[in-house]
Amino acid sequence: MTTTDQQTGETAPAVATSPGYAITLRIECPSTGGATRALTTAVGEAGADLTALDVVESTHDSMVVDLSCNTADEAHAKRVAESIEGVEGAHVHKRSDRTFLMHLGGKLSVEPKVPLRNRDDLSRAYTPGVARVCMAIAENPEDARRLTVKRNTVAVVTDGSAVLGLGNIGPAAALPVMEGKAALFKQFAGVDAWPVCLDTQDTEEIISIVKALAPVYGGVNLEDIAAPRCFEIEQRLRDELDIPVFHDDQHGTAIVALAALLNALKVVGKKIEDVRIVLSGVGAAGHAIINLLQAQGARDIVACARNGALHRGEHYDDAHREWIAQNTNPSGFSGSLKEAVRGSDVFIGVSAPNLLDEDDVAAMNDGAIVFAMANPNPEILPSVAAKHAAVVATGRSDFPNQINNVLAFPGLFRGLLDAGAKDITDAMLVAAARAIAESVSEDELNPSYIVPSVFNPEVAHRVAEAVEATAQRHA
Amino acid sequence: MTTTDQQTGETAPAVATSPGYAITLRIECPSTGGATRALTTAVGEAGADLTALDVVESTHDSMVVDLSCNTADEAHAKRVAESIEGVEGAHVHKRSDRTFLMHLGGKLSVEPKVPLRNRDDLSRAYTPGVARVCMAIAENPEDARRLTVKRNTVAVVTDGSAVLGLGNIGPAAALPVMEGKAALFKQFAGVDAWPVCLDTQDTEEIISIVKALAPVYGGVNLEDIAAPRCFEIEQRLRDELDIPVFHDDQHGTAIVALAALLNALKVVGKKIEDVRIVLSGVGAAGHAIINLLQAQGARDIVACARNGALHRGEHYDDAHREWIAQNTNPSGFSGSLKEAVRGSDVFIGVSAPNLLDEDDVAAMNDGAIVFAMANPNPEILPSVAAKHAAVVATGRSDFPNQINNVLAFPGLFRGLLDAGAKDITDAMLVAAARAIAESVSEDELNPSYIVPSVFNPEVAHRVAEAVEATAQRHA
Repeated sequence: MTTTDQQTGETAPAVATSPGYAITLRIECPSTGGATRALTTAVGEAGADLTALDVVESTHDSMVVDLSCNTADEAHAKRVAESIEGVEGAHVHKRSDRTFLMHLGGKLSVEPKVPLRNRDDLSRAYTPGVARVCMAIAENPEDARRLTVKRNTVAVVTDGSAVLGLGNIGPAAALPVMEGKAALFKQFAGVDAWPVCLDTQDTEEIISIVKALAPVYGGVNLEDIAAPRCFEIEQRLRDELDIPVFHDDQHGTAIVALAALLNALKVVGKKIEDVRIVLSGVGAAGHAIINLLQAQGARDIVACARNGALHRGEHYDDAHREWIAQNTNPSGFSGSLKEAVRGSDVFIGVSAPNLLDEDDVAAMNDGAIVFAMANPNPEILPSVAAKHAAVVATGRSDFPNQINNVLAFPGLFRGLLDAGAKDITDAMLVAAARAIAESVSEDELNPSYIVPSVFNPEVAHRVAEAVEATAQRHA
Repeated sequence: MTTTDQQTGETAPAVATSPGYAITLRIECPSTGGATRALTTAVGEAGADLTALDVVESTHDSMVVDLSCNTADEAHAKRVAESIEGVEGAHVHKRSDRTFLMHLGGKLSVEPKVPLRNRDDLSRAYTPGVARVCMAIAENPEDARRLTVKRNTVAVVTDGSAVLGLGNIGPAAALPVMEGKAALFKQFAGVDAWPVCLDTQDTEEIISIVKALAPVYGGVNLEDIAAPRCFEIEQRLRDELDIPVFHDDQHGTAIVALAALLNALKVVGKKIEDVRIVLSGVGAAGHAIINLLQAQGARDIVACARNGALHRGEHYDDAHREWIAQNTNPSGFSGSLKEAVRGSDVFIGVSAPNLLDEDDVAAMNDGAIVFAMANPNPEILPSVAAKHAAVVATGRSDFPNQINNVLAFPGLFRGLLDAGAKDITDAMLVAAARAIAESVSEDELNPSYIVPSVFNPEVAHRVAEAVEATAQRHA
């Protein structure tokens, strides 16, 4: 669904409908010829996208119909129902919400992998046989990676302090996201992942809890933990645990951003060593992106916070900003984001909506690359950026080139677990990014296709192989 | 396999073979008529139980055979292989251990319950749709029991300090037991259970960690945590959490012991109010058994520690022993276990091997009941006890009347979860015990069948219904 932008006269996406807001309406209506046509017209007039219409009951006089459609939000769903009530003789009996229906009872189950049908099975999987397996591990702790779920299991750990764009909603409300993440781990890479939603936001407590939980897990995926707490937690756990620890909001984003940039640079015929990159946003993700782009050879990165470019000429109280100022911006540029973007080759935004306009992109170098990844509303609308940029990407699924972490984390952990890796290195992150980039073939590559589809089953496989090979090379 | 007891001349179980020590031998041997017979004879002579013999390859001259048999332990498995090497022309190529094979890669998997095939699925199960489910829980925390795995999920928590009879083997070595427990939860009652093996044995730390993990779980099953730490941990968690907390080594054992006692008393025609019960062992399980027997009406319990009966006349530094002394032994008996048993009706042992002999049981009242539950070696061999007792039970699967916690915990938690219970009461534990006892019909009941089979699928169902009904009555 699109509307015309009042100011520019351009078509731009308005409130987009989404399957995330899909509803199903049970409607009673007359069984006259035009009845269903009247219903679908009412749905269309209310601005919703019809996805299914099933007749549940039918008599000579009346019908019961289940009508499914995607809406934009709660208020929109209500307007759709009202629009249908306006149809002659139609009556909405029940409105069900397909997203909530899907969540009833949770999205994960724990299944035994061994039969437990009779006494023999029980004697092997449980007492008395299991005692020998316990003793084998007590004598040789490394056997836990062979004889227990540790072999294939990742903890998805959050404190609920920075969930999606929803903020500090706490551990219980964060659980549906962590369950979804765990489901994706299994679906895309066969990894068993389990949600760990902690009812504490104390840095030291989180660190000591994750350390205490570690015997069951082969890796830790930190998720949706607010900055700057996430930095300390990740660094300490990396130092103190002998299993890999990964903060997806940082490194997952950085991997996919690097993958997209490698392919975008191919499209415009530039090299990462030569381009000026302007980064908007110096939080968790921004920090990791700088680190990974430099590991891949980027030399000229200017990072901008709300009040402009970080540079050596100034002192920052925040240790992470100080690090960025000391390790980026070699020309010592000082000024606003808009000034920084002028004459640059690449813009990467992990910050806030509507920071750039058409003129800013026009002032970039030829063959400009714009990754406007603020969610859900990007730094600049992709349709506007595309007027002057050669390649545009966002974090959203309703535009081309979605920078989506799902491309990275399942395969990354598959590779780490298969290698029995004890930590994660920059070389592994770069290997993952390259594997994602190379999943788009030369023939497929074009300005609207710089990252592979998240549903391409090959991607996780390639990422896993690249990460495992890198881990083994450095072991 | 049985041998003759040297002292008594009675047949008594010797080193019992078990499927927990099953091995499979790959053997090359001549393809003459008598070859396989020679192999099976060698297995029998070594004292192992043959379970399968499969010919894998066969030529005119030779065969390859996979021979499976149950052995008693590692040394016995080795002797079996040596015995086969003694057969003319036979050669053992490979010895595999079926218990270890079963454990490769662990015994649990985490599976998505929702489809993730395309963008629509992803939009509902993950972003952007999941955000609405998160917000619903943030606004109404009780919705977590409806919209997340909390609805059906139990944490199986241990610190690895008292695992089976193996002692303090630590959290990694305890994991195979917790995985097995989780598998039983699913198999017998459809409960999703997840192992939490904590790398700490500090009481306060364990308490605070379990509290922090609680958002994901609808219940906590404490397992194999050493006394007296387990008492404090359980009590504090019961007080401070709003989900049920259960220590299986205590209350699971107590439930099944009470169930068995109810049926044993029926067999001998006595009432729980009237009998004198002697309990050997005042640790975690003993304490819980006293509590539950009294909740069911038992009035005359004498509890014995290593140095004899606890009684009001003495002061005990240990608070739990002091409680037992103040709340049992109404006649103020003081003396040894053997003296206490004389003239009693019921003996329940959760202590150590070989504390009683034939004469002790002979000195009990007519219609004596003996539950010798020390594992793996009971307080008295059941074959010896049976000479004078009317009903005998143990904790072992190779004698009749196994007091097995598997009869209790799956159905108990099924009922608690279905009721949305926030705590566990004695009334629920008694209801569970009665439901187990009543799973043995009047027609089935006899001295060798006072508890139902652990593979009777009805038991967990009955327990769940009884617990749920009790929870709702008291809600």
